[in-house]
Amino acid sequence: MPTFTSHDPRDGAPLETFVEDDEPAVDAAVAAATAAAGPLAALTLPARAALLDAIADALDADGAALVARADAETALGEGRLVGELARTTGQLRAFADVVREGAHLGVVIDHADASATPPRPDLRRTRVPLGPVAVFGASNFPLAFGVAGGDTASALAAGCPVVAKAHPSNAGTSARVAAAVATAVAAAGLPEGTFRLLQGAGHAVGAALVTHPDVTAVAFTGSLAGGRALADLAAARPEPIPVFAEMGSHNPVWVTPAALAARGAAIADALAGSATLGVGQFCTKPSVVFLPDDDAAAADAFVTHLAAAVAAAPLAPMLDRRIHDAFDARRGALAAIDGITDVTPPSDAAVRPGVLVTDVATWRREPLVREECFGPLVVVVRCPAAALVDTVATVPGGLTASVWSEPDDDADRATAAALVAGATRRVGRVLHDGVPTGVTVGWAQQHGGPYPATTAPATTSVGMHAVDRFLRPVAFQDLPEVLLPVWLHDANPWGLPRRVDGRLEPGGR
Amino acid sequence: MPTFTSHDPRDGAPLETFVEDDEPAVDAAVAAATAAAGPLAALTLPARAALLDAIADALDADGAALVARADAETALGEGRLVGELARTTGQLRAFADVVREGAHLGVVIDHADASATPPRPDLRRTRVPLGPVAVFGASNFPLAFGVAGGDTASALAAGCPVVAKAHPSNAGTSARVAAAVATAVAAAGLPEGTFRLLQGAGHAVGAALVTHPDVTAVAFTGSLAGGRALADLAAARPEPIPVFAEMGSHNPVWVTPAALAARGAAIADALAGSATLGVGQFCTKPSVVFLPDDDAAAADAFVTHLAAAVAAAPLAPMLDRRIHDAFDARRGALAAIDGITDVTPPSDAAVRPGVLVTDVATWRREPLVREECFGPLVVVVRCPAAALVDTVATVPGGLTASVWSEPDDDADRATAAALVAGATRRVGRVLHDGVPTGVTVGWAQQHGGPYPATTAPATTSVGMHAVDRFLRPVAFQDLPEVLLPVWLHDANPWGLPRRVDGRLEPGGR
Repeated sequence: MPTFTSHDPRDGAPLETFVEDDEPAVDAAVAAATAAAGPLAALTLPARAALLDAIADALDADGAALVARADAETALGEGRLVGELARTTGQLRAFADVVREGAHLGVVIDHADASATPPRPDLRRTRVPLGPVAVFGASNFPLAFGVAGGDTASALAAGCPVVAKAHPSNAGTSARVAAAVATAVAAAGLPEGTFRLLQGAGHAVGAALVTHPDVTAVAFTGSLAGGRALADLAAARPEPIPVFAEMGSHNPVWVTPAALAARGAAIADALAGSATLGVGQFCTKPSVVFLPDDDAAAADAFVTHLAAAVAAAPLAPMLDRRIHDAFDARRGALAAIDGITDVTPPSDAAVRPGVLVTDVATWRREPLVREECFGPLVVVVRCPAAALVDTVATVPGGLTASVWSEPDDDADRATAAALVAGATRRVGRVLHDGVPTGVTVGWAQQHGGPYPATTAPATTSVGMHAVDRFLRPVAFQDLPEVLLPVWLHDANPWGLPRRVDGRLEPGGR
Repeated sequence: MPTFTSHDPRDGAPLETFVEDDEPAVDAAVAAATAAAGPLAALTLPARAALLDAIADALDADGAALVARADAETALGEGRLVGELARTTGQLRAFADVVREGAHLGVVIDHADASATPPRPDLRRTRVPLGPVAVFGASNFPLAFGVAGGDTASALAAGCPVVAKAHPSNAGTSARVAAAVATAVAAAGLPEGTFRLLQGAGHAVGAALVTHPDVTAVAFTGSLAGGRALADLAAARPEPIPVFAEMGSHNPVWVTPAALAARGAAIADALAGSATLGVGQFCTKPSVVFLPDDDAAAADAFVTHLAAAVAAAPLAPMLDRRIHDAFDARRGALAAIDGITDVTPPSDAAVRPGVLVTDVATWRREPLVREECFGPLVVVVRCPAAALVDTVATVPGGLTASVWSEPDDDADRATAAALVAGATRRVGRVLHDGVPTGVTVGWAQQHGGPYPATTAPATTSVGMHAVDRFLRPVAFQDLPEVLLPVWLHDANPWGLPRRVDGRLEPGGR
């Protein structure tokens, strides 16, 4: 039976060996998930919320061991991983609150109107779970975007069983997480197929999962190549299914002339911190900064400050050897491009970070510089202030865009407004005077964006609206109350937010 | 320059000749739409609503000529087409009301919380239009699902320009509709690219449109083969885009034993009317009836009554010769299958309708009988009452499912409840004691369903939620109010429904 071994990125030492799951294992997992779909969908909202809370409690109960194993597998550090565990359990509990409120059920009631032309029947709309969901854990967030991360939390919140594929670089962490989830599932009296884990270092297990006829949707966080491959497989199925792939982003930053003049050093510090956080291994890492250089001295000072701050950042080893090698290769290829200058001072970090400087012509000409570079590297594109706004249309679809400006200054505000308007057409989240890393989990969050950032720009993979991905509307026409789901009864026994005869009701009991 | 000619289905007489649009014409249309995207998106909600109302008024103003041309091209009859025009203008005006309310903007505000761990920024989420949308008009609803039908109305409501491809069998109707839309667009002072029409009898113009890099989404109503071809093209683009294809459905019907005993003849009459309405050319035509035959005499009587009513239905010619020939061929192929009996009495209609009878084994065994048959044909699957519920899992994904039952009878109610539960997993709309044709336009409508009914089961192509298809969320983080869209200001100047700090507010001014 094929196996693979996880390694400590700090010293390359082998940690644990796992059996590579095969197609029969995938079939068994999906069969178990399919069997669990009915019982999970049939839970009352409080019971489903309790399951999510119980999973969070089980993860917390194993917290120290989870953090230790995740640190050994990823080198992300205890502090970061303690925070990430809190985020993971926090989002499970936040989805429990979403479930308790019940807005995700999307209840709409239009009463019959026999006097209308044509007569209108009684119609009641709600949303139902899709069925078994395949979740692919990410390498860079072993917990929060791992096998019980946001995708799994939102799928379970929707009432969908999950078959999760661990990222091989955090297979041991994923196995511990899965054990915690299994404990909570068993305690809730639910079928064990409610959550199943698959392991594999190759592509076969993932491909088998995505093409399995009983899988109804796919959630993925990872590379563009990986996400697109899964999306292509899913689109070519006899019955195509949606793939919610979050594939990273350039996360461009624009600094206006007045902001550069007023706060250049502080902005450079903030960006250096964001670009090197977690060794630059964030989907929202700022990869490119568009910098006005009409005041050449101010631009020079910004670049020097940024480069020094990036070189001084404490950098752990990258998540695994393959990722490290890919980063070094990309860094080298970028630095070798004519028109790009490497201004990074020497650094004694485990990874050689990068601050590269270029101009708009090179940025526009070279496809490689317009692709995401995963790791601690920032490209500064110097450009005339008058050309700043025109650069917005040159950035690929992304998760975030950031503008640093001085809106009290009339001219600068006009520039910022144009940048914000342009960025709104290109990304899922637009920030002002802030860094894109650190993705708040809340109702107003949007973590998504046009391709190649995601395969599903109308959805979010972080925040409460992530639950929407795994639901499908169904309308009931002229059903006698005795045949209707109880939450669609006129009396609104669950106190749900609804739209009744066109009028919104906020719900609450 | 290649041309094609439309024909009167009643006598095959040529009606009008059209130039087949080519790739440069597609490029020009999409370029015009792209240029219109900004101005259309920038309209205030009342101004965008006024555009939709004005399009409805312009269609009404040309109503008599539109109905005459549509009748000549489709043979659907003046009465039906007058009703369809009213539905078309009614849904444009209903989307105007949707726009005025503004719930589609999906406003969510989470205020900053510096005391949280980690601190929470100010986040405000709204939804923005995708950009130019390609709309493919249907053959069977030349107005309501035509080039200014529900797809176009909802795309414009979302703020997306539309490039519409006319169905060749109603090219002249589509040209008149487009002229009316252009009048309203011009009167609103909007760029003419807000709505553009393309003509073509072949596949080239549609393929060029779907693969054009500036098209952001596709809406289609038509055949499974056509919808799947467009979805495959869209998924294979360098930047994949969503395809909202409504491709028809089996629309299965279950009659419970008690309903058969109590009301067999009335149910047969209702189903015959629904199956022959518009010559059976409805996406929601009931194609298969699962009938308990433990009481063989009652089942026989039902079948005899249904067959007589179908044969007696007044049937106009089908929409075009190709559709008519395809129906005759399918009807013949089905009737020739071993285990299927043709019980249709002779009929002097322009089309020979069909009532075919079979058993569960044949239904399960023969793929052809489980495919949609577009036209006035119903298959009755006789089965033991005890096996009725098990048949639900055998139906393909669909738009609707109907249950006729006697819920006051305890045993029958249990059967009905199981049928409703099963059907909820297979379709987008579940009806009781009613026929699926006649799709009400309203907030609670769901016209969609699992593949092969649609390529996007999470969306609807009829009803107010159809606007959701053409919007994408964007979050703004820590933007000073002066840089925020005005509808995201705390003061809520547009009186929108919102979620603020987790709490739903119904809006209204």
